[in-house]
Amino acid sequence: MIFTSDNWAGAHPAISASLSAHSTGFSAAYGASDLDRKVEQTFNDLFEREVAVFFVGTGTAANSLALSAVNRPGGVAFCHREAHVIADECGAPEFFSNGARLAPVDGAAGKMDPAVLETQIGRFPPSFVHGGQPMAVTLTQATEAGTVYTADEIRAISKIAKAHGLPLHMDGARFANALVALDLTPAQMTVDLGVDIVSFGGTKNGCWCAEALVFLDPAMATQAPFIRKRAAQLFSKSRFIAAQFDAYFENGLWLDLARHANGMADRIRSGIAASGRARLGWDSSANEIFPIMPKSLSKELMAKGAMFYDWTPPQSVSHLVGADETMLRLVTSFATTQDQVDRFVELIA
Amino acid sequence: MIFTSDNWAGAHPAISASLSAHSTGFSAAYGASDLDRKVEQTFNDLFEREVAVFFVGTGTAANSLALSAVNRPGGVAFCHREAHVIADECGAPEFFSNGARLAPVDGAAGKMDPAVLETQIGRFPPSFVHGGQPMAVTLTQATEAGTVYTADEIRAISKIAKAHGLPLHMDGARFANALVALDLTPAQMTVDLGVDIVSFGGTKNGCWCAEALVFLDPAMATQAPFIRKRAAQLFSKSRFIAAQFDAYFENGLWLDLARHANGMADRIRSGIAASGRARLGWDSSANEIFPIMPKSLSKELMAKGAMFYDWTPPQSVSHLVGADETMLRLVTSFATTQDQVDRFVELIA
Amino acid sequence: MIFTSDNWAGAHPAISASLSAHSTGFSAAYGASDLDRKVEQTFNDLFEREVAVFFVGTGTAANSLALSAVNRPGGVAFCHREAHVIADECGAPEFFSNGARLAPVDGAAGKMDPAVLETQIGRFPPSFVHGGQPMAVTLTQATEAGTVYTADEIRAISKIAKAHGLPLHMDGARFANALVALDLTPAQMTVDLGVDIVSFGGTKNGCWCAEALVFLDPAMATQAPFIRKRAAQLFSKSRFIAAQFDAYFENGLWLDLARHANGMADRIRSGIAASGRARLGWDSSANEIFPIMPKSLSKELMAKGAMFYDWTPPQSVSHLVGADETMLRLVTSFATTQDQVDRFVELIA
Amino acid sequence: MIFTSDNWAGAHPAISASLSAHSTGFSAAYGASDLDRKVEQTFNDLFEREVAVFFVGTGTAANSLALSAVNRPGGVAFCHREAHVIADECGAPEFFSNGARLAPVDGAAGKMDPAVLETQIGRFPPSFVHGGQPMAVTLTQATEAGTVYTADEIRAISKIAKAHGLPLHMDGARFANALVALDLTPAQMTVDLGVDIVSFGGTKNGCWCAEALVFLDPAMATQAPFIRKRAAQLFSKSRFIAAQFDAYFENGLWLDLARHANGMADRIRSGIAASGRARLGWDSSANEIFPIMPKSLSKELMAKGAMFYDWTPPQSVSHLVGADETMLRLVTSFATTQDQVDRFVELIA
Repeated sequence: MIFTSDNWAGAHPAISASLSAHSTGFSAAYGASDLDRKVEQTFNDLFEREVAVFFVGTGTAANSLALSAVNRPGGVAFCHREAHVIADECGAPEFFSNGARLAPVDGAAGKMDPAVLETQIGRFPPSFVHGGQPMAVTLTQATEAGTVYTADEIRAISKIAKAHGLPLHMDGARFANALVALDLTPAQMTVDLGVDIVSFGGTKNGCWCAEALVFLDPAMATQAPFIRKRAAQLFSKSRFIAAQFDAYFENGLWLDLARHANGMADRIRSGIAASGRARLGWDSSANEIFPIMPKSLSKELMAKGAMFYDWTPPQSVSHLVGADETMLRLVTSFATTQDQVDRFVELIA
Repeated sequence: MIFTSDNWAGAHPAISASLSAHSTGFSAAYGASDLDRKVEQTFNDLFEREVAVFFVGTGTAANSLALSAVNRPGGVAFCHREAHVIADECGAPEFFSNGARLAPVDGAAGKMDPAVLETQIGRFPPSFVHGGQPMAVTLTQATEAGTVYTADEIRAISKIAKAHGLPLHMDGARFANALVALDLTPAQMTVDLGVDIVSFGGTKNGCWCAEALVFLDPAMATQAPFIRKRAAQLFSKSRFIAAQFDAYFENGLWLDLARHANGMADRIRSGIAASGRARLGWDSSANEIFPIMPKSLSKELMAKGAMFYDWTPPQSVSHLVGADETMLRLVTSFATTQDQVDRFVELIA
Repeated sequence: MIFTSDNWAGAHPAISASLSAHSTGFSAAYGASDLDRKVEQTFNDLFEREVAVFFVGTGTAANSLALSAVNRPGGVAFCHREAHVIADECGAPEFFSNGARLAPVDGAAGKMDPAVLETQIGRFPPSFVHGGQPMAVTLTQATEAGTVYTADEIRAISKIAKAHGLPLHMDGARFANALVALDLTPAQMTVDLGVDIVSFGGTKNGCWCAEALVFLDPAMATQAPFIRKRAAQLFSKSRFIAAQFDAYFENGLWLDLARHANGMADRIRSGIAASGRARLGWDSSANEIFPIMPKSLSKELMAKGAMFYDWTPPQSVSHLVGADETMLRLVTSFATTQDQVDRFVELIA
Repeated sequence: MIFTSDNWAGAHPAISASLSAHSTGFSAAYGASDLDRKVEQTFNDLFEREVAVFFVGTGTAANSLALSAVNRPGGVAFCHREAHVIADECGAPEFFSNGARLAPVDGAAGKMDPAVLETQIGRFPPSFVHGGQPMAVTLTQATEAGTVYTADEIRAISKIAKAHGLPLHMDGARFANALVALDLTPAQMTVDLGVDIVSFGGTKNGCWCAEALVFLDPAMATQAPFIRKRAAQLFSKSRFIAAQFDAYFENGLWLDLARHANGMADRIRSGIAASGRARLGWDSSANEIFPIMPKSLSKELMAKGAMFYDWTPPQSVSHLVGADETMLRLVTSFATTQDQVDRFVELIA
C-alpha cells in the first residue's frame, strides 16, 4: 500500500523491454540516432504539427529550460502558489533563467484564478523598470493538487497571457493523467488552447527517466539546442530516453497507464466518500488525492502498512482541518494494484 | 567498424539486466532507496574511505557541478587546452559556476605541462583583483588524447594545486580506461595523489546513463545536495542510475569492459605501427587513437564501411601532418569486437 | 513643493565643495588612495570596530552584493513584502546571487512580523532539498513605509536569524534617517543588535552617489573584493565616492541633514493631523509620509504645484482607503525647505 | 611625474564646475531629468543618428552590459588576447552574460589580426553544439597597447563579424584618444564602419565617473533598460553623470583633453626616440607608451620621483626585452603637465 509518490514506482515492463532491445548495436550519439528521430516524429504526430522536441533528464530540467528559453532580464514568471516550479525545484528555474523570479498566483484547488493572475501581471507596468517585467505564465497540468484545468480554464489563462504578450508554458509532469481525465488529444489540450511550450513527462507514468521539452512552435526553439547542452542535459546515449518513449507511446500504452493510475485514485476517492471516517480536502480527478481524516486513523493506516505523506494543507483550506485531524497526500501510479487499493479502502471503511 | 565514439555503443547486457530486475517494486525516490545506499557504499569501498557520492546524468553535469562546488567570484579553473570541459561542454562549467573562467594550459599529448600550469596560475597574483582568482585545477583521466597521466604526473600537478591552495578535480569520464592502463586502484589514482573531486563516468564504458560526482572528502560536499538539485540533476527514480552502477561494479565488470576497450585499441595501434601506411600522431594507452594517414587511405577506409571522425590536429603537432594527409580519431569501446578491429587493421595493412 | 522622492534632490553644497577640492592632483586608483583609506577609518570609528568597507555606486548594488556574499545554492533570503530588494530592484539581488530567492514576510507598517518570519523560515526544513535553503534575513532601516524598527524589534529579528544560523543584513538606504529618529549610534543600531552587514546609503541624504557595503565582521568579507569587481562596482576614481563621504561625515553633517529631512516630515505629519481633511495611513518617524485624503484634495494639491506619487496602499490597509480617497507618498529630503512644507500644509489645512 | 594610469587623475575643473552648478534644485530621478535628456540628444548629434544611450558607472559595466545585451547560450565573444574585457575585469563580462566565454585573438600591438579572428570564429561551426556559438566581436579603441585601429582595420574586422552574423562592440574607454589620433568623427569611427555598440568612456579623460553604453541602432536596446537596472547600474541621481558629460562635450572639451593627453605622450615618445637609452616596444599613437630600457634606468627614474608600472611584455615581443632590461607602461592624461613630461624626458636623455 505505497501511496507516497508515483515516482516510487519503477519502470513498466514494456519500457524495460524496449531499453534492453535497443541496448545492442551502435548508433549516433547526442540525439542523432534513427530512434531519436522516430520518437521526435511521434511527437509531431501527437501534437498534430511539427514541434521541436528536446529530451532531458528531469521534469525540473524541462521546466527550467522552458523558462530559460523565454527569459528576459528582470523577468517574472507567474505560476500557482503551490506549483512544483516554485515549491519543489530548489530554485532551479530561477538559476537557469539567471535570476528571473516566480510570482505566486492564488487560486482554489491548485489552479490559478484568472482574475488573480490578471492582477498580478498588472503589478508590473511596462514602463516601471524597477519592478522587473513579466516574461511567462506557467501552469501545471495535472496540478500538484491532483486537479485538472478544464479546456475553458486553460483558455482563460491563455487569453490573459496572450493579452500581455507572454508565452504560456505547461508543466506536464503528469500530462497523461490530465489528458485521460479530460478525454482530450494532446493537441486539443495544448495547441488549440494557446499553450506554447510543454514539459512533457514520462517518468511519473511508467518510464525510468524520460522527459521532453516540447516547443509547439519550433521558431521559439532556435536557441534551445545550446540552452540544453549548456545545462548539461544533452545525453550522449540519448537513445536510452528515446527507447523509453518509443515503448511508452506504442499502442497507447501511456494513456492506458495513466487511465489505470487515475482509476486507482477514483477507487480510493469512492472509498473515502463511502467511509464516513474521512473526506476529501477537495475533489480531484487525476492520480493525487488529499483526504482529511482523524490523526488516529492516519496512524492506524500507517501501522497497518500503508505509506503516504502527511500534507500541510494549503492556507486556503487549512481551516477545514480540525485540531485532531490531518491531511494526507495519496498518489497512485501505473504500478498501483487494485489489491493494494482495496485493502486501503477496507481499512478506512 | 564503428570507431566514432565510445558513446555510440549501447549498454552492456548485465547493465540492461540489472535495470530490468530493479524495475519492479516500489522504493524511495530521490536517492533514498536501499539500492542507492548500497551503491554509495560500494563507492566508499572503491575509494577506501568514506566519500560523498552524487549521481548525475551526464559527464558535463559532473564536471560542471564539481567546479560549481569550489566556485569563487572571478574564479579561474585551469585545464588542458583540449580538455572536454573547455572544448566540448558548450560553456556549461562557466554557466554553472556563474561565469568562472577556464584557463587553457598547454602540454604534449593532452596532458598539462606542470611548468606551464605553474606559470598560468602565477598570472593571477592574489592581490590583483582585476584579473580574477584561481579556483581549481582540473585534469582529465584518461585524457581527450587517449593518453593517461602517470601517478607521478598527477602528483606533480597536485603539488602545484596544493601549493596555491587549489582543489584538484579529475574528469574521469574514462576513469576505468585510465585505471586499467595504469594498473592502479581507484584510491591509488586519486586519494593517494591529492585528487579532491572525481567526475566518475560509467556511461562511456557500458552504462546507459550513469555518472557520479564523488567528493573524496565529504566535508567539501556540504552544499552539494543543493547544488545538484538546483542544477536539475537530482533524479526522482534515482535507482535507475544505482541499478546500472550496481551491475557495473559487480565482479569487476567495469574493469573488464575497460580492459577490453583498451585492448581493442592496442590491437589497432599495433596494426597501424605494422602497416607502413599510417602512423600514430602520438602514443596513447587508453581507448582513443589518433593516427595520421594519407587522405586517400582515409577515404578508402570510409568507403569500405569504417566510421570515425577526421580530427583537427592540436596546433603543437599540426606540422607533422602532411598536405595530403589527415588525422583521424578512432575510439574503441566495451562493444567493439575483435572482428571489427581485425577487418579495420587489414584494410590499413 | 517636491515630495516625489529624496533622490530628486541634488547634492549638498559641502559635498560639492569636497568633490571640487579633491578633483585636482593625482592619487592611487581603485580605492587605494589616502582619502579612501581615511574614509574607511571613519567607518571604523562610526561602528566602533574594524569593519570591511566597500564603496559601490547604488543602493541596489550594495544590497545585491551583500546577498551575493552570503549566497547559498537554492538560497532563500527573507525580507518584508514591500522591501526595496524585492519590489524595486528589478531582480538584481536574485541576479547577483545567481537565482537565490527573496521570500516575502508580512508585517504591519513596513516591518517584518517576527512570528511570520519564524514561520516562513520554518517552511524550509534543512533536510528537504527540494524547497531550497534559508540563506539570510534582510531588513530595511528606515523602512519603505517611513517607519523605523526599534532596537527591540531589530533584536527580535536578529534572534530568529541567529537561531537559524542566518546572517542579518540591514538595507540602510536611509540609515541616517533611522539613526536620528531612534537617537542611537551606528554601533548601537547594528553591531549591538546582531546585524552583520549594512548597505550604508549616502545618496538619498545629500550625496550624489555614495553608497557603502559594510561588513561589520571583516571575516565575512574575504571574497568581497572579487564580488565587487566582478559586479562592475569597483570605481577607478574611487576617491570621488570617498570625497563625498568625507564631507558627509565631517562635523556630523550627515546627521544634521537627516534630522532636517525627518523634521520636515514631522511638520507635514503635524499639518495633516491638524487638517481634518487628510489622515496618515500609518504613523511614521522618518522622512516618508503616507497620507490618505480625498482624491479631489490630491488633485487640488497637484494643481497648486505640489509633486508627489499616488501610492498603491499595501493590501493590509487598503480597506482603510475609501472609494473617493487616495493614498499619497510624500518624501522629504535634506533639500526640502520649510517654506515648501508650510505652503503644502497650508493647502491641506 | 605620475604616469601610472590616466585614472590617477581627478576631474577637470569644468567637470567639477558643472557638477556644482547642477547640484541645486530638484529634478526627476533615474535618468528622466531634462539634463539627462539633453545629454542623450548630444549623443545623437555626435553619432549623427538616433542612438540609445545608457549611462553606467564603470567601463567594466558598459562592456559587460554590452555583451549581456547580445548574449547567447554557450556564447563566445572574440577579443584581443590583451583586451581589458578579458584581462582586467575579473570575469565581469562572463558573469553578466551568464557564463559566456571570451576567446582570445592574437595580433600585433594590441590589435586583433583579422586572419586570426576569422580562424578563431571558424572553430565554432554552427552545427556543433558542444563547442558553443559565436556571439560577438569586441575591439578596444584605443587599444590597451596605446595603439589605434585605423578605419580600414576596423572595417576588416567588421566585415568578418558581419559575415558571421555577429554584432561588433567597441570598448571605447579611450574613445576620445583614438578619435583625435585618427582625426575622425564619432560616426566615422563607428557607424560608418559597422560598429554596433560602443562603451563610451569619459572617466579616463577628465570625468569623475561618466560612462555610457551606446547602441548605435536603438532596436538592439529594447531589453537594455532592464539589463542595466538588474545590473545595479541605474543611478537614482543620474544627472550627476549627465552633468559631467554636459561639460565634457561643451565646446569640444573632450577632444581638447584627449589631444592634450596624446600630445603629452607624443612628447615622451619623441624624448625616448632621441634618448638613445630607451626605445619603444612598439609604436603607439594614443596616450599609452611602452618603452624598453635598462633596469638601472627604470630604477633611476623611480628614484627621481617618476611613477609608472613595470609591464609584463606581451609574449610576442618578450624576446625584444633583454635580460637587463624592463618594459614600462607610461600613461598620460588630461592632467599631465608639460613640465612633468619635460622633466621625465630630461631624465632619460
